[in-house]
Amino acid sequence: MRRLLTTLALALLTTGLWAQQALFNASNLTSPELNTDGTVTFRLLAPKAVTVEVEGDFGHRAAMKEGKDGVWTYTTPKLEPEMYSYKFRVNGMEMLDPSNAYRCRDIASFANIFIVSAKQGDKGWLYSVNKVGHGNVSKVWYPSPTLKATRRMTVYTPAGYDRGGRYPVLYLLHGAGGDEDAWTTLGRAAQILDNLIAEGKAKPMIVVMPNGNANCDAAPGEWDKGMYKPSFMGHNASKPVASTEESFKDIVSYVDKNFRTIANKKSRAICGLSMGGGHSFGISKLYPDLFNYIGLFSAAVSLNVRGFDGLGDRDQKIAPVVEQQLKTLFQKKPALYWIAIGKDDFLYQQNKTYREYLDQQGYPYEYVESDGGHIWRNWRIYLTQFSQRLFK
Amino acid sequence: MRRLLTTLALALLTTGLWAQQALFNASNLTSPELNTDGTVTFRLLAPKAVTVEVEGDFGHRAAMKEGKDGVWTYTTPKLEPEMYSYKFRVNGMEMLDPSNAYRCRDIASFANIFIVSAKQGDKGWLYSVNKVGHGNVSKVWYPSPTLKATRRMTVYTPAGYDRGGRYPVLYLLHGAGGDEDAWTTLGRAAQILDNLIAEGKAKPMIVVMPNGNANCDAAPGEWDKGMYKPSFMGHNASKPVASTEESFKDIVSYVDKNFRTIANKKSRAICGLSMGGGHSFGISKLYPDLFNYIGLFSAAVSLNVRGFDGLGDRDQKIAPVVEQQLKTLFQKKPALYWIAIGKDDFLYQQNKTYREYLDQQGYPYEYVESDGGHIWRNWRIYLTQFSQRLFK
Repeated sequence: MRRLLTTLALALLTTGLWAQQALFNASNLTSPELNTDGTVTFRLLAPKAVTVEVEGDFGHRAAMKEGKDGVWTYTTPKLEPEMYSYKFRVNGMEMLDPSNAYRCRDIASFANIFIVSAKQGDKGWLYSVNKVGHGNVSKVWYPSPTLKATRRMTVYTPAGYDRGGRYPVLYLLHGAGGDEDAWTTLGRAAQILDNLIAEGKAKPMIVVMPNGNANCDAAPGEWDKGMYKPSFMGHNASKPVASTEESFKDIVSYVDKNFRTIANKKSRAICGLSMGGGHSFGISKLYPDLFNYIGLFSAAVSLNVRGFDGLGDRDQKIAPVVEQQLKTLFQKKPALYWIAIGKDDFLYQQNKTYREYLDQQGYPYEYVESDGGHIWRNWRIYLTQFSQRLFK
Repeated sequence: MRRLLTTLALALLTTGLWAQQALFNASNLTSPELNTDGTVTFRLLAPKAVTVEVEGDFGHRAAMKEGKDGVWTYTTPKLEPEMYSYKFRVNGMEMLDPSNAYRCRDIASFANIFIVSAKQGDKGWLYSVNKVGHGNVSKVWYPSPTLKATRRMTVYTPAGYDRGGRYPVLYLLHGAGGDEDAWTTLGRAAQILDNLIAEGKAKPMIVVMPNGNANCDAAPGEWDKGMYKPSFMGHNASKPVASTEESFKDIVSYVDKNFRTIANKKSRAICGLSMGGGHSFGISKLYPDLFNYIGLFSAAVSLNVRGFDGLGDRDQKIAPVVEQQLKTLFQKKPALYWIAIGKDDFLYQQNKTYREYLDQQGYPYEYVESDGGHIWRNWRIYLTQFSQRLFK
């Protein structure tokens, strides 16, 4: 077969790019190169460029230097274990690294990614595909009678699911601008769960990642609105007939019917980031008998029914219906009500107001405060921490 | 919730790109714009560029023109219904269209995509997500005792599968450089099957798209070798302990055990493109009792056991074991042996040699000759044609 491939390769080399597919179009450079000392080198062939920079979430924007061969390079300081994102800027214009086939979409824009890991168990290792059992990841269409639509969710079933048994379920919700793909791409949810389960740190569980935009059936390009430009507001032209919170029972009901779940409150958890944290807040109090574990990650919590009127306002007036729902929820004693946020998050003050309300009412919760702002780095950490607390 | 989103959006606008995620980083331009007259306009903001070109599989490479606002534009002639790929070239350097969030990977390189459709039933419509029932698409890990590995395949289950019943199975194989993602991205297999099934033109079927590189467990980045550069040869450092053909029974056995299949020859089909066409040729003759429908798309057919020794050679000597396997296969009368290739395909002569052998032996087959070369446009057409012939 190797000989067959070599012959195929030679035959294709003699033909044009678009005539016979883009087989040999990739750059021959290695970029990024993860050096043994923990630094990372970026390379870009750009012989006609005047300036080339690299910018990413490893902390800074840096000028690259041109070598005699027209290859621009830059080497970072030593980086901590983490999944990083970056882009190049050539003559001021953003572009991705053509040598790096790994990239994630965040709403309408892309960035290259790479992972630094030093040893088993560190963050880079947790976000990598390792030699452990892997769960399956499915894109599943389900009926939502409440939204009068057939909608899509991503479902992770843990390694060993095909051998039988029943499993608890974590409902894992994305933020505004995201969709049912966000947690398995930027969030590395499948890798985090695979690795934590393999290490015995998390229980084997099903993870359900629905589309949280009530005005979308699925991720951009994946439903019948065509290849529209992804936006922060879901699909601008569509108006939902109900809210994500109101329609959530359709999801739980489909999952309990079509997957081998343990269909009771003890074996159900819900958490989400930003808007999805707001959804977790709203759904858990709307259905106080459904979830035993509730996680709010950098959550957009709204104590006033109408929305964000009280953003950051310490005197935010809580609506009577919200007050009653929270009272009922906490009377039913969920096993864990978990709140996490970064010190620099723009929702920090709003979460503080909410925590003060919980304190005042004597409702028990756990609180984790991290560095950083409203970023995926934090949400991956929160998922890692929260998922280890479930179903034990 | 709209008010909540607006507030979130305003709050995020005031923060930096990498500090609070890349929410507002996308271009405001519309590109590509599909005009009502069937032409397509590309736009790129590149005020400092000297030359900007667009090239794609719509037939040509074209210079774009700069407007006063620094936006370069180009409008194509009227395009036929099809899925198209393209890239920009800025000062000679390739880059993707930052306004277009839709792109496909082909081995290690990416191109933007768009779809032109004029009416229901045309090629563009067949490749689009329409308002029809959708099948689920799952990434499934299965054990391969033959390859001593846990490997991954993509499985399409048709709309309605969750309501019960048993289904026939099409095994759909990728080419060299591809993986278990190729047919659902470049190949639009889920859309083609959704649409043909909805129109009553294809039977509801399960479609299994395994990874055909015996030296890889899964697509690049999706198994434990890290984020290596995808290559034409699978994973260069790994040597398989058996061939794709020899290990294929592991796949059929897993699928029959874990999905509601009709587990007999009448309800099984196999087809593939290029190397996957070679695999379909090899697997069907190795297991003459497994498949009733066999499709070779631009196939790398090897009549000589050692590989491609006789590429394009009319006097290619057929190995005795291959001759015997083909004899057994055709004695068992498969319902359809289907060969398709483009006039300009570099494997044309080789396929001709094979057809002449089949003619000489009196083995029945059907032959479709199309325009064009070794390209996805043809393979999508072949899947559309072949899948309508199955299980009837």
